Amino acid sequence: MKRIQLLVFIVLTLATVTPAFAQDYFPDIPGYKTLACDLHTHTVFSDGMVWPTVRIDEARRERLDAIAISDHIEYQPHKADLPTNHNRPYEVAKQLAVEKNVLLIKATEITRDTPPGHYNALFLEDIDLLDTPKFMDVIEEANKQNAFVFWNHHAWKGEDRGKWSDLQTTLYEKKWLHGMEVANGGSYYPSAHKWCLEKNLTMLGNSDIHAPASDDPYTAEKHRSVTLVFAKERTVESITEALRAGRTAVWFENQVIGRQQYLKPLFDGCVTVAKAHYQKNSTLFFELTNKALIDVQLERTGKSGPSEITIPARSSVIVTAKLPNGKKTVNLSYRASNFLIAPEKGLPVEFSVTSH
Amino acid sequence: MKRIQLLVFIVLTLATVTPAFAQDYFPDIPGYKTLACDLHTHTVFSDGMVWPTVRIDEARRERLDAIAISDHIEYQPHKADLPTNHNRPYEVAKQLAVEKNVLLIKATEITRDTPPGHYNALFLEDIDLLDTPKFMDVIEEANKQNAFVFWNHHAWKGEDRGKWSDLQTTLYEKKWLHGMEVANGGSYYPSAHKWCLEKNLTMLGNSDIHAPASDDPYTAEKHRSVTLVFAKERTVESITEALRAGRTAVWFENQVIGRQQYLKPLFDGCVTVAKAHYQKNSTLFFELTNKALIDVQLERTGKSGPSEITIPARSSVIVTAKLPNGKKTVNLSYRASNFLIAPEKGLPVEFSVTSH
Amino acid sequence: MKRIQLLVFIVLTLATVTPAFAQDYFPDIPGYKTLACDLHTHTVFSDGMVWPTVRIDEARRERLDAIAISDHIEYQPHKADLPTNHNRPYEVAKQLAVEKNVLLIKATEITRDTPPGHYNALFLEDIDLLDTPKFMDVIEEANKQNAFVFWNHHAWKGEDRGKWSDLQTTLYEKKWLHGMEVANGGSYYPSAHKWCLEKNLTMLGNSDIHAPASDDPYTAEKHRSVTLVFAKERTVESITEALRAGRTAVWFENQVIGRQQYLKPLFDGCVTVAKAHYQKNSTLFFELTNKALIDVQLERTGKSGPSEITIPARSSVIVTAKLPNGKKTVNLSYRASNFLIAPEKGLPVEFSVTSH
Amino acid sequence: MKRIQLLVFIVLTLATVTPAFAQDYFPDIPGYKTLACDLHTHTVFSDGMVWPTVRIDEARRERLDAIAISDHIEYQPHKADLPTNHNRPYEVAKQLAVEKNVLLIKATEITRDTPPGHYNALFLEDIDLLDTPKFMDVIEEANKQNAFVFWNHHAWKGEDRGKWSDLQTTLYEKKWLHGMEVANGGSYYPSAHKWCLEKNLTMLGNSDIHAPASDDPYTAEKHRSVTLVFAKERTVESITEALRAGRTAVWFENQVIGRQQYLKPLFDGCVTVAKAHYQKNSTLFFELTNKALIDVQLERTGKSGPSEITIPARSSVIVTAKLPNGKKTVNLSYRASNFLIAPEKGLPVEFSVTSH
Repeated sequence: MKRIQLLVFIVLTLATVTPAFAQDYFPDIPGYKTLACDLHTHTVFSDGMVWPTVRIDEARRERLDAIAISDHIEYQPHKADLPTNHNRPYEVAKQLAVEKNVLLIKATEITRDTPPGHYNALFLEDIDLLDTPKFMDVIEEANKQNAFVFWNHHAWKGEDRGKWSDLQTTLYEKKWLHGMEVANGGSYYPSAHKWCLEKNLTMLGNSDIHAPASDDPYTAEKHRSVTLVFAKERTVESITEALRAGRTAVWFENQVIGRQQYLKPLFDGCVTVAKAHYQKNSTLFFELTNKALIDVQLERTGKSGPSEITIPARSSVIVTAKLPNGKKTVNLSYRASNFLIAPEKGLPVEFSVTSH
Repeated sequence: MKRIQLLVFIVLTLATVTPAFAQDYFPDIPGYKTLACDLHTHTVFSDGMVWPTVRIDEARRERLDAIAISDHIEYQPHKADLPTNHNRPYEVAKQLAVEKNVLLIKATEITRDTPPGHYNALFLEDIDLLDTPKFMDVIEEANKQNAFVFWNHHAWKGEDRGKWSDLQTTLYEKKWLHGMEVANGGSYYPSAHKWCLEKNLTMLGNSDIHAPASDDPYTAEKHRSVTLVFAKERTVESITEALRAGRTAVWFENQVIGRQQYLKPLFDGCVTVAKAHYQKNSTLFFELTNKALIDVQLERTGKSGPSEITIPARSSVIVTAKLPNGKKTVNLSYRASNFLIAPEKGLPVEFSVTSH
Repeated sequence: MKRIQLLVFIVLTLATVTPAFAQDYFPDIPGYKTLACDLHTHTVFSDGMVWPTVRIDEARRERLDAIAISDHIEYQPHKADLPTNHNRPYEVAKQLAVEKNVLLIKATEITRDTPPGHYNALFLEDIDLLDTPKFMDVIEEANKQNAFVFWNHHAWKGEDRGKWSDLQTTLYEKKWLHGMEVANGGSYYPSAHKWCLEKNLTMLGNSDIHAPASDDPYTAEKHRSVTLVFAKERTVESITEALRAGRTAVWFENQVIGRQQYLKPLFDGCVTVAKAHYQKNSTLFFELTNKALIDVQLERTGKSGPSEITIPARSSVIVTAKLPNGKKTVNLSYRASNFLIAPEKGLPVEFSVTSH
Repeated sequence: MKRIQLLVFIVLTLATVTPAFAQDYFPDIPGYKTLACDLHTHTVFSDGMVWPTVRIDEARRERLDAIAISDHIEYQPHKADLPTNHNRPYEVAKQLAVEKNVLLIKATEITRDTPPGHYNALFLEDIDLLDTPKFMDVIEEANKQNAFVFWNHHAWKGEDRGKWSDLQTTLYEKKWLHGMEVANGGSYYPSAHKWCLEKNLTMLGNSDIHAPASDDPYTAEKHRSVTLVFAKERTVESITEALRAGRTAVWFENQVIGRQQYLKPLFDGCVTVAKAHYQKNSTLFFELTNKALIDVQLERTGKSGPSEITIPARSSVIVTAKLPNGKKTVNLSYRASNFLIAPEKGLPVEFSVTSH
């Protein structure tokens, strides 16, 4: 009975999962590199608490591939001390970024009362041109500069004030709105998740960090919310192309959120099934390994194997399953309940294990 | 909005609460020392996994005041290799115990099918005399030796097989049964909690450890389950007296379980309210400090102060409360929801803070 | 032989010593509160990386009693973006400081080429008046404002460029120089230590922090360098009085540095000797407890007891000593090698333990 | 100046390196799997403190590939309680080993006064036949059973009592002695290291663990001492062949010890050099990545690059180097000072980095 107690502590121990290398975040998928990106951060140039170079130091420490500094255009509580200069955060941080090998994206946060709320515009050339009174003019100018525009934390003042209205429909029909934050900091927005699937918008998940980043080690539960971008190369241009193509997933707390076509190969890169290392009568003993930084949670949908399996982050577990009568192979059907292909809907996965 | 994110990490950081000193566990209460005791442990002499001296090393490392080694009389899966010798675990561990200043209690676990189930007998003189076929004879012999007898994890095979029956009534009426485990390892038994209150039985909480103890640091949630004994002195004799008098509480996960008359002074020793350090209009800012190893969780029952307050283990928080119109003092009424004076019933507590 | 291996791990586990409460830092000494102060920090207003309020959040998180924000007068690499305004860091941080119960000291760093080097001036009224070309004029103005002035990291460009010269003698004789940093960040300066003793200057140890503070837990070795101020009250006024009276010590890595008259009561507050809990022939077993956040390192100078004793931070050890022939008491003489009363000179300490 | 402070904390954070997977220990080398083996452990059947199955649980938890339980033949302090039965520890642990996928080697420790000292014999069939008075007879019998025999912690009672004498020469010439422990627990033996190189003996490093294993996370410095065996397959037979062929290295504290022919490919599997990610005038910026569980320490032996580089365990660092005048490539020559190819002699390594 007490063996269980020991196991609990082990999980705790292994669950420190700070990425040591960029490639530790999540594996690449066939045809694409998996880049860890935080596309929504702030500095002292708007209401953040750090000098822009700190965001680069933090990104390097956490082995992020790319960040956008997206200070508010309209909200600058420090401006009596630090006069408005929208393009400066990017300029200040750029040299350190190239030295530290962090891809830096020039961006801003368009910050209006809710509705219409807050929108990030990425890949801008001159942010000053967006500092103009009418909301529609700002979005138009962003699109003139070929920006990628997404709606931030749409429901942060409640689902009602964040509902999809004619304004969003206009933006959407003009192709001026390209994505939504499905996760922002500690919040997940199921309605954003649903709309992204319905309207083919790109899913994003970002930190919206204002304070200095914690340098506590990541755990499977507590870490920076990031957008996983499936890009052809590790360049700003490739990130642009991938965002426009909707090739993203979101790592939020102990969940990965995304389209099934990307979560499936991502899961397959994370979880591997070893050959049975032992057989006792008709019971096979085999190992499931999880290279991901999240605990993989599996719920049985088929007839064989344990009803639930948790493979802790960056760890492995030994599992047993019975061979069907007279068979040499057992097929296992599960749902990965924290790989969300839609709100509350886990990714279906299958394995088979063979007698040796 | 993001300041919250940082706070979450801080709590994580401070929540490592391995006792550095015996007195770190919980404060003494007026008139009594608070001793941390694990009264249910096993060794290789029954179905445990370690030599008896290991239990002493572990107890010293965790700064426990006292342990009982309570190997099973009737269940000894190693006996082909290690022949039965009921008194040996105590004899083997005794010398190390006195050197390491761990109080060692001679004990055994009477281990019958459920019902009647398992019972620990503490403070025995000769365990061999308890190795006899009839259950009632064993309990009688234990009582002849002036043992303290308690019913272990009564519902471990289900509430039904662990129900209070005529047999328990007989034991109880003969005064042969003195307590119950309200917690055992990772399980809490509300029905045991209720019966202890109704029948004036002593509440116990123990590890029932078989494997080596983890040497991971304690956290507020994960630690050895222990019985807090309110004893006149730090001696085996005083523990005996306190157990017979029912002066105990149980530290289980992030809860303390016990009678209100002991939880009240224990809470008062853990939590202190500082004078207001700042006043802004009618709002007082003051600090609540928690010396306990558990996070103290408070729910407002009165009209003033935040609706919920969590003071992390061994930490402090700054809280604000409004003075009533024209008053210099604000009174705060809360329920400490994890100081359980009955199943699902938290300890009522009150503070007042005065304008300076 | 292998028991030693286990002990090594235990020390590691217990050595996480982040202060949970202000009073956790070090105990008060008779007549004075022991306040943990960092009197040298920077913000974006000079060459630091954080907004001034971040220094308050960090100070609260680390349970510091007081900090000085001491931005450079002459070195402001951000001034193209953030125009010079010497008094602003204090003004920006003040409101949060009172809410968080952190004592905030208005200060600046006078920053000249070395020599004469860098000097902090604390308790200023108007920093703008110190922004004047001649070094001597600045120091004179600071003293006009009743500032406490200390020489920072004097040897940071080498002992030669940091040597005590006529300039320092002039400052000293005019009573315009009141202390020196014996420790700054990760550096300890034995020559500063020596001069403070010889010339009766106040000893200081500060972080000189520019980046965001780490929120990793403190260990006995790695933590913010702080000045321990022995003050009559927990107020800025009392800190002023204590600094002028030289009542300080420095906590640097795993060392406390200070005058014997303060280190002695500080040591006595940290380390306690329990009564012998066991005697085996003429050998007494007893416990040494260390409440400090540093490992206490003891080297035997007398004839009895182990040749070396380390009591880990916030922990206790069991030690043995032999009674002299026919005696009931053993006297133990040690040197606390990491309580430095002069460079490379540990504090002498004595205990006695009696047979029971 | 303070940026350094932050970096120190980062190293600390990343240095928790508990292997999550067997393959995390160290990479395979061309042609061979790198197996992590502890070939010297004890249980309650001699002077150890745990039941044999605990050694399997620990091995699985630490993701060891193989262990030998090697209880003493001649030293059995528990035998009054647990009668001698040399073959039982293996029998008791075997079933759990196959379930947990830990390779279990039947072994014993021949335990005589020093000299001749202690010797482990691995891959035995019947240990009872080794329980015979004369030392030479025991070694002969071990060899009759085709055991692999190595000399344990030869200098544990001093270099003099552990010196190479006629007895060892006899064993060696009869081909009855096949290896030596270069490391045992917390001790490293340079003379064993030297003799293994001179006499072509196999190098071993083991824990010699008696107490329960700590479940604290590994760090680069603190972890179980293990023998890395370069084996064709992950089987006991392949380990036997590899040990006889001398294909091993030893992971001891923050060092790897072994023959250059194996350390070179092991280093190459651990450390990779990325293409320059940035060039500033003639200075290249590039990343060095270390997948090993030890901090890789490099000292420059050539003319280019930093004089010292430390790549923390499972981490990466950005390094700069100047291109020689008019060249597109810089060659870097270093010594890996903690990859020991002989006592105090680090492995020579070379990289080149090219302008892009």
